[in-house]
Amino acid sequence: MFRPQIKVLDCTIRDGGLANDSHFDLQTVRAVYEACCQAHIDYVELGYRNSKEMFDPKEFGPWRFCDEKDLRAATDGIENPGTRIAVMMDAHKSDPNDIIPADESVVDTIRIATYVKDIDKAIAIENVAHERGYETTINVMAISTESDWELDPALEQVEKESHVVACYVVDSFGALYSEQVHYLVQKYQRIVPSCEVGVHMHNNQQLAFANTIEGIIKNANFVDGTIYGLGRAAGNCPLELLLGFLKNPKFDLRPILDCVAQTIKPLQKQLDWGYMVPYMITGTLNQHPRSAMACLKTDQRDEYRAFYDKMLELVE
Amino acid sequence: MFRPQIKVLDCTIRDGGLANDSHFDLQTVRAVYEACCQAHIDYVELGYRNSKEMFDPKEFGPWRFCDEKDLRAATDGIENPGTRIAVMMDAHKSDPNDIIPADESVVDTIRIATYVKDIDKAIAIENVAHERGYETTINVMAISTESDWELDPALEQVEKESHVVACYVVDSFGALYSEQVHYLVQKYQRIVPSCEVGVHMHNNQQLAFANTIEGIIKNANFVDGTIYGLGRAAGNCPLELLLGFLKNPKFDLRPILDCVAQTIKPLQKQLDWGYMVPYMITGTLNQHPRSAMACLKTDQRDEYRAFYDKMLELVE
Repeated sequence: MFRPQIKVLDCTIRDGGLANDSHFDLQTVRAVYEACCQAHIDYVELGYRNSKEMFDPKEFGPWRFCDEKDLRAATDGIENPGTRIAVMMDAHKSDPNDIIPADESVVDTIRIATYVKDIDKAIAIENVAHERGYETTINVMAISTESDWELDPALEQVEKESHVVACYVVDSFGALYSEQVHYLVQKYQRIVPSCEVGVHMHNNQQLAFANTIEGIIKNANFVDGTIYGLGRAAGNCPLELLLGFLKNPKFDLRPILDCVAQTIKPLQKQLDWGYMVPYMITGTLNQHPRSAMACLKTDQRDEYRAFYDKMLELVE
Repeated sequence: MFRPQIKVLDCTIRDGGLANDSHFDLQTVRAVYEACCQAHIDYVELGYRNSKEMFDPKEFGPWRFCDEKDLRAATDGIENPGTRIAVMMDAHKSDPNDIIPADESVVDTIRIATYVKDIDKAIAIENVAHERGYETTINVMAISTESDWELDPALEQVEKESHVVACYVVDSFGALYSEQVHYLVQKYQRIVPSCEVGVHMHNNQQLAFANTIEGIIKNANFVDGTIYGLGRAAGNCPLELLLGFLKNPKFDLRPILDCVAQTIKPLQKQLDWGYMVPYMITGTLNQHPRSAMACLKTDQRDEYRAFYDKMLELVE
């Protein structure tokens, strides 16, 4: 029944870090890491390795930079039966000089997030990471806004100039519907045949889990989730739902359920994520959720009609 | 771009009534009705017309019975440009004698909800409702638990013995995935070709909206939603998401957004609906959400591992 080729990546700390400027305490990161190891998740992404020149370490927490000493503090002493550790580098916000040789690092896999316009920067970083011994992926963000005539040549470059194990469809705006997921996954398979296709979905329209399944149906084999959907704005594909769907007996749902109860759900006291009408509006209109996030910080947070009318002005 | 044949039915008060024993105050029902009229929703279902012999009117609110006087109180004085009024009758919990002639009633459409085992009762009620002048539908509940060899002959009976305008796939357990929705919608079209197929989805696995879209892709033309997803357990397909997807210019999203802000979201103070881990567990395991609802009323509501292990014992 299950497809053993499917690799599940947990990015709770990395994507959740977009909701709190990567200010998770060490105990939270260790709890997520331990739950993923115990559940036999294939990959756990513990944050960004972005540049301290571009993000102020006084403003952002340690998981925006993933210094090796912090990664060691997060993982030391926890039994790991084979979960690979990933970090993400933004193509336009990171420095390849921050990539130390893989055999000196806790990190196994570097995922490079990029907009289509930054594909050359992404490939340059990928080449350094590959040369220094890491497994790599390239994750194309804001895919719902890219036109074929720009995306296709970028994907051709990934095929010719990189060594990635997977190239991702990243629905940053939570705007895709199933038929668009099918179209994009099949396009990637055609243009980047030497690697797997990955899918990373957002929940602005309550479609993150559904769209992940649609990717899987079209043979995407790298799939992202976060525990209890924690992530920017409406959040991500909930890892617990994904494991329930996959039915691969190697996964154990129980440690993830414990982590929801003991670690992630309590964060709701400080962090606001999940389905909210302003996110639904930006998702439906294929807009970045930043306007919705800004609206939700004002005392007009429940004035949905006004927000909708304002957003319509932007797109019409 | 849009498909004009698609009819949208709002069942906020009817399905939401499963979360509060149909105890909505009159102001709430009027607000929902008015929002649906202003938004040009095709149908609004204001409750059940179930039997007072089977439900105690001291225990259940007026929207479990939908007496004509209550329906008039809910609708009088509100401009209605063409939204049809529906009530639901449970095949095994209602009395055909409660069906007055349509020309004496506020109601346009009677939807009969049934399990496959009660299909004869459903058809008997349908025949009375049809004869007394109502438009009718039959809604087959708990569809994720029915085997083909029982469902198929029941659908054949609907085709031969009823006059319904639509026959519904009702995913009471929120357990279906997209490929199952496709399979069921196509089966209905084959066995019940003289009416439309309807879909009514639950959100236990965050798939209510996605599965509604999958029904639409396979040509289901009657689709249910509730405002802000209000409904039993994890709730329903959010009407606001559905309108955003459909893009039929006759629909106006704004009154629905106002109704979320002013009427439905404030109900969260008294009513608990939406995605929660116990519902995810029953959905994933294709179980009725009643065990999850019971668990959530105890002080073990966040002990997910224990609940999961208990549910596994039931299904394994």
